[in-house]
Amino acid sequence: METITDFKDLTSRFCALERACRVVVVCPDDEPTVECMLTALSRSKVQFIVVTKGNPLPSALTAGERLRVEECADTDSAAARAVALVRDGEADVLMKGDINTDNLLRAVLDKERGLLVAGGVLTHITLAEAPAYSKLLVFSDAAVIPRPNLEQLRAMARYDIEVCRRLGVASPHVALIHFTEKTNPKFPHTMDYMTMIDEAKAGAFGPDVVMGGPMDVKTACDPHSGAIKGINSPVCGKADVLIFPNLEAANTFYKTLSLFGGAKMAAMIGGTTAPVVVPSRADSAESKFLSLALACLNL
Amino acid sequence: METITDFKDLTSRFCALERACRVVVVCPDDEPTVECMLTALSRSKVQFIVVTKGNPLPSALTAGERLRVEECADTDSAAARAVALVRDGEADVLMKGDINTDNLLRAVLDKERGLLVAGGVLTHITLAEAPAYSKLLVFSDAAVIPRPNLEQLRAMARYDIEVCRRLGVASPHVALIHFTEKTNPKFPHTMDYMTMIDEAKAGAFGPDVVMGGPMDVKTACDPHSGAIKGINSPVCGKADVLIFPNLEAANTFYKTLSLFGGAKMAAMIGGTTAPVVVPSRADSAESKFLSLALACLNL
Repeated sequence: METITDFKDLTSRFCALERACRVVVVCPDDEPTVECMLTALSRSKVQFIVVTKGNPLPSALTAGERLRVEECADTDSAAARAVALVRDGEADVLMKGDINTDNLLRAVLDKERGLLVAGGVLTHITLAEAPAYSKLLVFSDAAVIPRPNLEQLRAMARYDIEVCRRLGVASPHVALIHFTEKTNPKFPHTMDYMTMIDEAKAGAFGPDVVMGGPMDVKTACDPHSGAIKGINSPVCGKADVLIFPNLEAANTFYKTLSLFGGAKMAAMIGGTTAPVVVPSRADSAESKFLSLALACLNL
Repeated sequence: METITDFKDLTSRFCALERACRVVVVCPDDEPTVECMLTALSRSKVQFIVVTKGNPLPSALTAGERLRVEECADTDSAAARAVALVRDGEADVLMKGDINTDNLLRAVLDKERGLLVAGGVLTHITLAEAPAYSKLLVFSDAAVIPRPNLEQLRAMARYDIEVCRRLGVASPHVALIHFTEKTNPKFPHTMDYMTMIDEAKAGAFGPDVVMGGPMDVKTACDPHSGAIKGINSPVCGKADVLIFPNLEAANTFYKTLSLFGGAKMAAMIGGTTAPVVVPSRADSAESKFLSLALACLNL
């Protein structure tokens, strides 16, 4: 497989999928979600199940053949029903429409009837295409885990590396982000980073994974910065994956890259038995479509 | 005074200063610092005192008249001597050359012979010009305080607002950054934000300061995001100042804005009796020059 290096590649690969990916959408009552679904119906073989809270759907959507509708009394029961459809094997991907993320994740996290993998860590994965960078960037966690511990940092790296593999990245380079290159017991995540780097060297994250850090975002993505600072990690300037130490830093990266860096974003949830797509309310139809493509390619 | 909205304005204002700003530079042994000094000598009335650790200076630098040289045995004594020159009133601004920031700040922080203001908070101030934003952005703290408490957050806001005033911003809009717009006792900085917003309303940060938060970076700087999310703070989309909850987030903003957003940066230290300029080793000559201009305009 050739490596996917931008969202044009990603979209082509999604649209060319032979199998019909079955996606259940919870309450697509907002325009960008409807537009995303229309694009997917016209360009790919995707099939939709829509779970509504009773609101009528636009006729453009219901006109097609690859859409089935179920009605529920409210958003919470719509979320529960959608999760049940995935559990029962009737849908491959769960996608959020006009419903609060917390409400949807509550249904996903339900111990008995949810979608959490046994021993899994529910965490957020973003895939970004930034004009200033020559390849796609995968990073975590911009939305779910505020203060990741070692186990959670490991899971974030594992899921992000898995995305790289599916994109065809032969040797994923993982940068563990901090504000400097120095480890310091005052910042426990820098000590966790050392543990993970040792584990990566021992092959715990799979073959050909190159992990480095602590380092800042610029050192991770700009080949000159590392050289000037005398940091000689093989990850410098070549990161495929960025693991952030806290939610404020990861969210700041997401928002800054998007607003000031003109980047496009796709995102999904990791640690679940099936891909879960939870776009932000402020995401565009294009961003929602890219997230759907990412989720369908990760089946 | 007309508002300074970009670095061209800032540079013009600096170069037009009638008074001769006296700058002491510690160990200018790197090319960007030398280039920055040469630019300042040719374009402004600035006067330099250079404290070296014995290394010879380039002849281009020593050829001019507005430069005095002092030799010390090593970088630490050079730093101490430079601080003494500021304390004795012989220099107005302290600037870092090829010396570790920690070593320079140790001399600045010395309780008896340093430059700390009584009751002051040593904190880092960045001024950024981003192509995607219509005005300059002031933010803290990308380099010094890892986990700011309420008193430190207040000081950061105070110093950043002071920079806005000197830039001629009539009504500084201050965004208190978090990953969401919800306050939560689990994230103590969001509770501190509420206190500061009340204080701002009562005039504690001076007249016409508009403070809002918690909010994310995109909500602070993009008028559409706030509207979509139903956040109606007057700060949304109009921030002049961003206060970050931790060093990882602020540093990530600095590095992402610079590398992916094509932004130019100027930076200085606040909370000292005189402006202190501590550029990163990876900063360009232009960035160092802009920092020097910012420091000289803040006298």
